[in-house]
Amino acid sequence: MRDILESVAAGELSPAAAEARLAGYASTDAGRFDAAREDRRGIPEAILADGKTPDETASLVLTAVETTGRALVTRADEATVEAVRTRVDAAVADATVDTDERARTLVARAPHHEPPSLDARVAVVTAGTSDAAAAGEATAVLREMGATIDRIDDVGVANINRVLDQREALRAADVLIVAAGREGALPTVVAGMVDAPVIALPVSVGYGYGGEGDAALAGMLQSCSVLSVVNVDAGFVAGAQAGLVAQAIDAARRT
Amino acid sequence: MRDILESVAAGELSPAAAEARLAGYASTDAGRFDAAREDRRGIPEAILADGKTPDETASLVLTAVETTGRALVTRADEATVEAVRTRVDAAVADATVDTDERARTLVARAPHHEPPSLDARVAVVTAGTSDAAAAGEATAVLREMGATIDRIDDVGVANINRVLDQREALRAADVLIVAAGREGALPTVVAGMVDAPVIALPVSVGYGYGGEGDAALAGMLQSCSVLSVVNVDAGFVAGAQAGLVAQAIDAARRT
Amino acid sequence: MRDILESVAAGELSPAAAEARLAGYASTDAGRFDAAREDRRGIPEAILADGKTPDETASLVLTAVETTGRALVTRADEATVEAVRTRVDAAVADATVDTDERARTLVARAPHHEPPSLDARVAVVTAGTSDAAAAGEATAVLREMGATIDRIDDVGVANINRVLDQREALRAADVLIVAAGREGALPTVVAGMVDAPVIALPVSVGYGYGGEGDAALAGMLQSCSVLSVVNVDAGFVAGAQAGLVAQAIDAARRT
Amino acid sequence: MRDILESVAAGELSPAAAEARLAGYASTDAGRFDAAREDRRGIPEAILADGKTPDETASLVLTAVETTGRALVTRADEATVEAVRTRVDAAVADATVDTDERARTLVARAPHHEPPSLDARVAVVTAGTSDAAAAGEATAVLREMGATIDRIDDVGVANINRVLDQREALRAADVLIVAAGREGALPTVVAGMVDAPVIALPVSVGYGYGGEGDAALAGMLQSCSVLSVVNVDAGFVAGAQAGLVAQAIDAARRT
Amino acid sequence: MRDILESVAAGELSPAAAEARLAGYASTDAGRFDAAREDRRGIPEAILADGKTPDETASLVLTAVETTGRALVTRADEATVEAVRTRVDAAVADATVDTDERARTLVARAPHHEPPSLDARVAVVTAGTSDAAAAGEATAVLREMGATIDRIDDVGVANINRVLDQREALRAADVLIVAAGREGALPTVVAGMVDAPVIALPVSVGYGYGGEGDAALAGMLQSCSVLSVVNVDAGFVAGAQAGLVAQAIDAARRT
Amino acid sequence: MRDILESVAAGELSPAAAEARLAGYASTDAGRFDAAREDRRGIPEAILADGKTPDETASLVLTAVETTGRALVTRADEATVEAVRTRVDAAVADATVDTDERARTLVARAPHHEPPSLDARVAVVTAGTSDAAAAGEATAVLREMGATIDRIDDVGVANINRVLDQREALRAADVLIVAAGREGALPTVVAGMVDAPVIALPVSVGYGYGGEGDAALAGMLQSCSVLSVVNVDAGFVAGAQAGLVAQAIDAARRT
Amino acid sequence: MRDILESVAAGELSPAAAEARLAGYASTDAGRFDAAREDRRGIPEAILADGKTPDETASLVLTAVETTGRALVTRADEATVEAVRTRVDAAVADATVDTDERARTLVARAPHHEPPSLDARVAVVTAGTSDAAAAGEATAVLREMGATIDRIDDVGVANINRVLDQREALRAADVLIVAAGREGALPTVVAGMVDAPVIALPVSVGYGYGGEGDAALAGMLQSCSVLSVVNVDAGFVAGAQAGLVAQAIDAARRT
Amino acid sequence: MRDILESVAAGELSPAAAEARLAGYASTDAGRFDAAREDRRGIPEAILADGKTPDETASLVLTAVETTGRALVTRADEATVEAVRTRVDAAVADATVDTDERARTLVARAPHHEPPSLDARVAVVTAGTSDAAAAGEATAVLREMGATIDRIDDVGVANINRVLDQREALRAADVLIVAAGREGALPTVVAGMVDAPVIALPVSVGYGYGGEGDAALAGMLQSCSVLSVVNVDAGFVAGAQAGLVAQAIDAARRT
Repeated sequence: MRDILESVAAGELSPAAAEARLAGYASTDAGRFDAAREDRRGIPEAILADGKTPDETASLVLTAVETTGRALVTRADEATVEAVRTRVDAAVADATVDTDERARTLVARAPHHEPPSLDARVAVVTAGTSDAAAAGEATAVLREMGATIDRIDDVGVANINRVLDQREALRAADVLIVAAGREGALPTVVAGMVDAPVIALPVSVGYGYGGEGDAALAGMLQSCSVLSVVNVDAGFVAGAQAGLVAQAIDAARRT
Repeated sequence: MRDILESVAAGELSPAAAEARLAGYASTDAGRFDAAREDRRGIPEAILADGKTPDETASLVLTAVETTGRALVTRADEATVEAVRTRVDAAVADATVDTDERARTLVARAPHHEPPSLDARVAVVTAGTSDAAAAGEATAVLREMGATIDRIDDVGVANINRVLDQREALRAADVLIVAAGREGALPTVVAGMVDAPVIALPVSVGYGYGGEGDAALAGMLQSCSVLSVVNVDAGFVAGAQAGLVAQAIDAARRT
Repeated sequence: MRDILESVAAGELSPAAAEARLAGYASTDAGRFDAAREDRRGIPEAILADGKTPDETASLVLTAVETTGRALVTRADEATVEAVRTRVDAAVADATVDTDERARTLVARAPHHEPPSLDARVAVVTAGTSDAAAAGEATAVLREMGATIDRIDDVGVANINRVLDQREALRAADVLIVAAGREGALPTVVAGMVDAPVIALPVSVGYGYGGEGDAALAGMLQSCSVLSVVNVDAGFVAGAQAGLVAQAIDAARRT
Repeated sequence: MRDILESVAAGELSPAAAEARLAGYASTDAGRFDAAREDRRGIPEAILADGKTPDETASLVLTAVETTGRALVTRADEATVEAVRTRVDAAVADATVDTDERARTLVARAPHHEPPSLDARVAVVTAGTSDAAAAGEATAVLREMGATIDRIDDVGVANINRVLDQREALRAADVLIVAAGREGALPTVVAGMVDAPVIALPVSVGYGYGGEGDAALAGMLQSCSVLSVVNVDAGFVAGAQAGLVAQAIDAARRT
Repeated sequence: MRDILESVAAGELSPAAAEARLAGYASTDAGRFDAAREDRRGIPEAILADGKTPDETASLVLTAVETTGRALVTRADEATVEAVRTRVDAAVADATVDTDERARTLVARAPHHEPPSLDARVAVVTAGTSDAAAAGEATAVLREMGATIDRIDDVGVANINRVLDQREALRAADVLIVAAGREGALPTVVAGMVDAPVIALPVSVGYGYGGEGDAALAGMLQSCSVLSVVNVDAGFVAGAQAGLVAQAIDAARRT
Repeated sequence: MRDILESVAAGELSPAAAEARLAGYASTDAGRFDAAREDRRGIPEAILADGKTPDETASLVLTAVETTGRALVTRADEATVEAVRTRVDAAVADATVDTDERARTLVARAPHHEPPSLDARVAVVTAGTSDAAAAGEATAVLREMGATIDRIDDVGVANINRVLDQREALRAADVLIVAAGREGALPTVVAGMVDAPVIALPVSVGYGYGGEGDAALAGMLQSCSVLSVVNVDAGFVAGAQAGLVAQAIDAARRT
Repeated sequence: MRDILESVAAGELSPAAAEARLAGYASTDAGRFDAAREDRRGIPEAILADGKTPDETASLVLTAVETTGRALVTRADEATVEAVRTRVDAAVADATVDTDERARTLVARAPHHEPPSLDARVAVVTAGTSDAAAAGEATAVLREMGATIDRIDDVGVANINRVLDQREALRAADVLIVAAGREGALPTVVAGMVDAPVIALPVSVGYGYGGEGDAALAGMLQSCSVLSVVNVDAGFVAGAQAGLVAQAIDAARRT
Repeated sequence: MRDILESVAAGELSPAAAEARLAGYASTDAGRFDAAREDRRGIPEAILADGKTPDETASLVLTAVETTGRALVTRADEATVEAVRTRVDAAVADATVDTDERARTLVARAPHHEPPSLDARVAVVTAGTSDAAAAGEATAVLREMGATIDRIDDVGVANINRVLDQREALRAADVLIVAAGREGALPTVVAGMVDAPVIALPVSVGYGYGGEGDAALAGMLQSCSVLSVVNVDAGFVAGAQAGLVAQAIDAARRT
């Protein structure tokens, strides 16, 4: 604690960042900001823009950048991107704001912030084109957590040869995220081909009965293979969970 | 019609059977018996024992045997089997009653009845042991419709090698029934490997969310491959539908 | 394989088309394109535009046209049609792009491509006006597969005379697709009138409980008649499945 | 009110029956007994045995017999029948207790009670054998309300000829109850054939998706024909509602 | 039949109207038009505009006006109203087109058409302001069927005095439609206060769990009172069913 | 009653307000207005704007202001706010109209109206930013009922320290409303930390399975702690129920 | 703390009870026993016997009796009652075990334990006989919390007079629990008649759609009246929540 | 491959075991046995006894023991345990069969089989007594995979102190399984307290809405913390997935 306080005294750490470190969260205009996840787990604070006004999101981003050096926004629409850019540019000199339109993510970063780097390999696998948004969200958080990422796309099981031909690439991963919509069978098949943990990510593709990702979620929860699951379109959660496994492996490798 | 009436006059055809032919159904003590399906489509009258008392089922079986030469009972419990045996033995000399305990089916047959024979090949494929009951129901009706049946069992996709090794056997079929519970991914994979029509049969295996066959049904309806689906555990329907396709192919081959 | 490679050498086959033939899919800018279905089953590659950007759809169409000679887009909105037209016109001289506004389908075709022709008859039956879109999707794929198509419209069971009067037309078909929304009773009644296989196509018409096609789907799965089912509004799947049956009958007739 | 009190004084009316008339219900050991329905609408008090102990049901029956002259029990199992018989026999000399095993109904009646008689005709129509229990419950209440009842059984739409052949019988009714399970299409077809009101009664027959009467209920609510619906297996409600219509017609005929 | 044909010969009846009378439907450009309901049950042909293009609706309206003298459109948006007006004005001289914006209904009528008049009284009861649209749909069809209509509005049970004060008005009706959203308790309370049949009409008001009319529908199907139910927002069905009861009473009164 | 009538005579009370007092509701152009809740329970009349036209809402507001001195509108969009302002300004001199954009509430108040004041403390607790709208609706009604309100925001359980640090503030309340979306665990944790009653308010935040507040509602109903629940986003109901408890405590304190 | 430790030293308090007081829970053979609720909120520890073996329940009961003086078991079957009696009799001299068969509750009490007494009145209201079990569970916990309880039974809204006649009794309560199954309308009507808070308790009575208490729960959550809700059959929760309100009122009255 | 074949020749490896190694599965009387999971992932073959006859399960166990040295049965009832014991004892000398009654698991092991040992720590955390069965299933598979297991029981969030007091124990784990029923909030709270990956295991405890584990599953999928989820009661899957993470960490530690 002494170190932290001295950093504050030296002007190296803002009071907000210091409070975040000490209490696990910072009391700001935008509310109580939960810095614990970033601080302890190395997961960047992720702000779900759905259900918030652009202004609310921008305030939270600013707080995150100021206390932890960065922020990740998911489900960002144009108005949110605009609001964040304006607020961040005005408040933090030389901050960067990067967006991925397909994944609907935004990363704001303070000038001196340096993302970590892990000695662990995560494969992000998709069944088809429509899985790109959810997979992109997962990729965004994995990048922030420092994992090496292999994208293996378009290997849906309707033509089983596509995934069989990727056997080597799949087996090279320390942990895998497998995204699929419709019937969501790809994670089951992949989990039967590798010996690393598989995190299944159902995607809201499809129509009629079981559409909106319901069939994919149900199939993954019922899978005959061993895998764990996140919610429909929860790319951030899948990415962060894979990142935690990668961190554990990285730590074990370094010891 | 003249022929039918003369057969009645000659005692070769019972009045009930004659009425069934002429009206499409026969009015019996057990109700209006629908003989049209047997007569026109060659599908044996199937009596779903669930929701009926053993006595009601036995009466319907008897009527079916007397008017169309045979009856198929599905979801038959022990009391039903017993009741049917007693009633049929008492009423129809030399009738046979065959049962399949795992599939819970019963076939009663009049002495002179001869099932048809089709020049068409139906593959009945299962993912695992628990699919045996539903597949057995399908097999029972296909046998009555006269198709050549190939059983290909235990080829669930959790170990993709099992189904890949059956590629030849799968491609030999004119039409396929693919049964699976849990995530129900097998029909999707099989339909991507063959060029014949695939009928997907979801099975009520599994637990928790999507259990009772819900995930399998949803996944099959959402399949990225081309296939059509029957209800959960509807082995009879899958078998009869495959049998109709087999009949059409058989007819085309004979012309 | 030698033939294929020599065609490539002779410039008669593009490398992409050759790869599609040999590997079952082609690796393109738009992803791994699954050509196996077209190649083996004669089902045109169908691209579901929902959940894809117009650009993504257009890229996939272009790849399909270049490797298999044609592409079928379903659920195409105006922006998608526009994007496809622009891309195809720019890349493939003399290609044609045909659309059906009500069915929301689009067919792109390379200049030399010639659809097949089958000696088999498919009836596409609708209960009412609102079933036109789903039935149109089925018709589009059947046309590409080469079947002879009979449309029998507006014969919903609320007035049973309408369907009874079409008995002859229904019985002329080798396989039938029956589309209905609301209570979805028409396939059950039709399947009791014919001896050919019936594929039931539930349509998302209706409101309140069981609306959006749920009641129709449930009723078709519970049908007392023998039939198989596709998902709500899955006109493409119904059409392709009927086309596979038609192919099998055609093949049997030719031998 | 004077008349009622004088009847009490004269010993012609029990205090409980008098209270029931005056207050609309009677306060008894078994609780507040709602006599209003019997008194005003002529619907016999119906006690749903499910969810009650045999003793509770028996107490309610006794109160109903003592205050209104009769009671109708639905969903009665053997223990309930036994308990009711014992209690009624002990308390009311010459009372009768009639049961219908298939319909699971019981009617207890005081010695002098005389059911009404209506100049109105109700058809009770079933699709198949499994609809007998629900239809029997409807029939039981209609009998108590005094309607003339026509049973038309086994006319499910899988063989459309069966119902077409009953056109005359169906059209003779003043109001119809049409019971069906599985896909529940019969009420829709019947309502298109008659000009009297149709009350649709879904039955919990079937399995898999839409089983337990769900598909039937949904289909009836979505019907393209005009009809109103009661809950799954709600034979009593269907019968009583039809009885109310019959009463109204009877009253109109008598004026 | 002779009469009809002579009317055609005399130019008093169009061929379409004659076909409608004889066959039960008319084959028109807009499809097979079901005239049987109007002809036999006196229910005006109702066209559900949802799921149809304005043009399709307008064509069906025109056919209905030409064959049966009138048409009722439900769920009509502005574009549909416009399209109908244009088509009807152009084709039928002196036709009238009346709309009810709140109920979203439209009635088109040929110049000589005269609606019937029934000696029967239907109460249309609502719980609150938000039930006006569904109740208006019911009122529209009842008006076309000729019933005398009493509107009793704003008597929801949260303040029980409101409905108690309407006891007399409620008891004056021969048949009642009771519309309610949210918890949908009003029909249960009303059905306990009257001796005429009650048709419950759930309305898609409310939010959260049981919103969109689900709670109301479920509560009405579970009602402890005797009543029958139509689907959520199915004002037309409720009105037509009440109209059929009113017709039966009217007929009985006239004999 | 005499007092009321004399107030009317004196012009101190409008006839509508007098009727509302005497009958429990007032008959107005906008329908039967339920004044009983305001009069007896002190809950301001709340008008749910969803499902009503702006005009309908404005009429109801006006009636409420004229009969009870104020009105609370929930789910008010811009058009509704505009319509209310216009109508109220035109009809009631010096009336005030206050809105809360985030909570989507509007309060209209007659010039002399004075809200009550209670000696009771209600804590309104939120898990995060997205709960602000629902919590704001609760706060609006509590303010009108006169409770002292403590807002405790941003204490979701993902970082348990935040809520632990508010232990004192939570324990100071006489009754608590705890709002949360997503998994909705906060009310369970809070209810384990205090001895006052907790009312749980699920919020429609989240996506995929259990989204739209379903998981939160289910979790609150399943809570291992003791608490009662209102519907998803039912901020008004939570506020009014807490207000009733506060009134009871206030009354007990004053005696 | 000093007091507690001195009580232990004096043998007046068992170490388990002391730990429970100090830590909020006691570590026992039967697990970590949560004594906080009893200690802070005065709610007796309630053990849900469903999902536990009789032995597990008995162990938990024993721990509760030893640390807090009593235990309440809900959903107790015969085997559980037997196991608890045996264990408690063997371990705690002069302990009492009282059961309520209909409510399926059991209360075990140490010899010197004395339940509290509150100056507050709770009405427990039921719609009908089938609500007795859930209401009994609520009553059991209220009795342990010391409230004065008024039972008002059999006042379901199908006959509205029954509840109207209880207006005085209902208004006498400080807080009300209203239990109902089927359509669950009673709490809505009662909440419109009183000014005290109402807690709605849905009961799993009914069948078909909305059965098992679903319609009642949904209707209560959608109620137009102000009330809060507990889960289906959650009599304990309803009782304890009402008890907390009663405690708050009692405390306010005593100050 | 040569090594394997020589082992067969030397009698050290059965033909079945050799086939399992080479093909990934073994063709046996009990079907195609999938040995790949055991062989590659070190997960013992788990046989779900639900949906299989005791004989079928016993056959599969025997095959597993003979080819991979052991078998794990889940959801084993008494008849299954008996059948397995009989079959294994008869076929494999000195085999052991261990069962866990609460977890309903059975482990059969060949005499020379030695489970692996991992340098990794897995915490298995439960909210309460009712979670023991699911947690026991997870523990059984983890034991077979060789992980060090810490059980942390009875720390449900209704009394937050219990879990806070276990902070150290929780943080010592490399990966955690957190089991909870009812509202399922524990995994969310735990995941906010540790930096290792958390696998959430919902348990089918609870009743009413969200019962049977639905609320727990939904809440875990909606969690504001980062975690992945398995199906309701899927203790085996949770255990195996945690085991795979433990294996990866163990491997990284050994390099």
